[in-house]
Amino acid sequence: MSRIAYVNGLYQNMREACVNIEDRGYQFSDGVYEVCEIRGGRLVDMPRHLARLQRSLSELRISMPMPLAALEVVMREVVRRNRVRYGIVYLQITRGVARRDHGFPAATVRPSVVVTARSLSFAKNQATAAKGIAVITVAENRWPRVDIKSVSLLPNVLAKQAARDRGAYEAWYVDPQGYVTEGSSSNAWIVTAQGSVVTRSAESGILSGITRAVLMEILAALQIKLEERPFTAAEAAQAAEAFVTSASQIVMPVVAIDSRPIGDGVPGPISQRLREEFHRFSAIS
Amino acid sequence: MSRIAYVNGLYQNMREACVNIEDRGYQFSDGVYEVCEIRGGRLVDMPRHLARLQRSLSELRISMPMPLAALEVVMREVVRRNRVRYGIVYLQITRGVARRDHGFPAATVRPSVVVTARSLSFAKNQATAAKGIAVITVAENRWPRVDIKSVSLLPNVLAKQAARDRGAYEAWYVDPQGYVTEGSSSNAWIVTAQGSVVTRSAESGILSGITRAVLMEILAALQIKLEERPFTAAEAAQAAEAFVTSASQIVMPVVAIDSRPIGDGVPGPISQRLREEFHRFSAIS
Repeated sequence: MSRIAYVNGLYQNMREACVNIEDRGYQFSDGVYEVCEIRGGRLVDMPRHLARLQRSLSELRISMPMPLAALEVVMREVVRRNRVRYGIVYLQITRGVARRDHGFPAATVRPSVVVTARSLSFAKNQATAAKGIAVITVAENRWPRVDIKSVSLLPNVLAKQAARDRGAYEAWYVDPQGYVTEGSSSNAWIVTAQGSVVTRSAESGILSGITRAVLMEILAALQIKLEERPFTAAEAAQAAEAFVTSASQIVMPVVAIDSRPIGDGVPGPISQRLREEFHRFSAIS
Repeated sequence: MSRIAYVNGLYQNMREACVNIEDRGYQFSDGVYEVCEIRGGRLVDMPRHLARLQRSLSELRISMPMPLAALEVVMREVVRRNRVRYGIVYLQITRGVARRDHGFPAATVRPSVVVTARSLSFAKNQATAAKGIAVITVAENRWPRVDIKSVSLLPNVLAKQAARDRGAYEAWYVDPQGYVTEGSSSNAWIVTAQGSVVTRSAESGILSGITRAVLMEILAALQIKLEERPFTAAEAAQAAEAFVTSASQIVMPVVAIDSRPIGDGVPGPISQRLREEFHRFSAIS
């Protein structure tokens, strides 16, 4: 089956789905995106993703191209047309098409909207989670506005590829003070020997992850202690467990950092439990 | 007359010229570009632009989509088809189209190539230069790999817009130590009271500008003293003259920084002379 995408008002075959070469997303990475998990054909934590989208757009002074409710209808329609039961829906909004010039174009330029969806293999993701993933650490080299979920992702691309080159799955950024900020496409967590779950505050240096926010509520519900504070790569190396969170990976156990095993080198019990419990708590609509 | 663009093997009307929504340039800003000045329908300093392009691609491990000679033929053809006598040619190469995934796609994925050209008004540029431009200073917030001429330009977009919002033309980045790095789309220069021309070394923090490199040779030929060293925003505020360089602006006098006049608040004699002399020295082919 060919995949279908929504592009500026039209549902198109992915192969023909295109944007103008002067779209500011293409020439300036002047746009934002969201990725939302799909379960049973429904959207996971959609209201939070839309709220974050609004914030990202607002920070960049890109106007909302359509009401949020309409955007949600489009996303559901793309999921439906691609017959996705389990997978992700991807939404990208850019500042639109204008003659190349760094400054913002006239307010009459309409933002571009692209929505795609694709099925993922639930079995494959579960198998990856059962084994756990390896991460590497890389020096933080992104701009400070990583709180905006922009498509200016070249540093993240290079970090992810550095992980692949070393046989790992994800790269964790480490700031000049030695603290882990986040992964190239995920938030970073550890579990201490005392069973506390630790993740950096979203006040600085990281994107405020939706899966991260939901997981914090789950920790409270399960009465697992949360420490919202920075942790160093050295502390992570000694942690009982580690994991990453993202919309497509949910809770993914980390079993090695820079080729050294974490804990027993297998997915830890708290990471596994949180992965299992997640969808009892997330808002599926 | 409609503009014509080259996109992956085809010469197309700009309005229909498009790239796939999964082009990595659009989703990840995973690509590079060059802008080359056109004079009398010919290309200014083309070999240097192509050499820098090769370096940018190599740093990102993007393969050359075609031999440099073929790329040059395409650029000339786009200039010809758009009947540009004075203006710019723009070249963008991205890692190509692949299913969205941060890491590099298979080596079989071909890079995308886009070339556009457009006429500029020589009279208007001269008028701007005769008046001089205002710049503002902003905190450096880009990633350290600004030596790669990538399309990951969102920070530059915001800096340029901040300048516009304050009635200025360009923004100069200032690093945490107070040193000016470069402009959002240009290199930054000052002239001291003693008549030395000062610009930061291209070893770190800036893009190695082609116009910058040519201008250094011109300074040597004209026996004007060059100091290749960092300068602070405070030193710039007290400078006799200031100017910026870029392929589209060549040497553009700066007459105010953060609303305070530089020198007499009019384009300085050295800046003007360098602007006039530039094309005696640049390689036009």
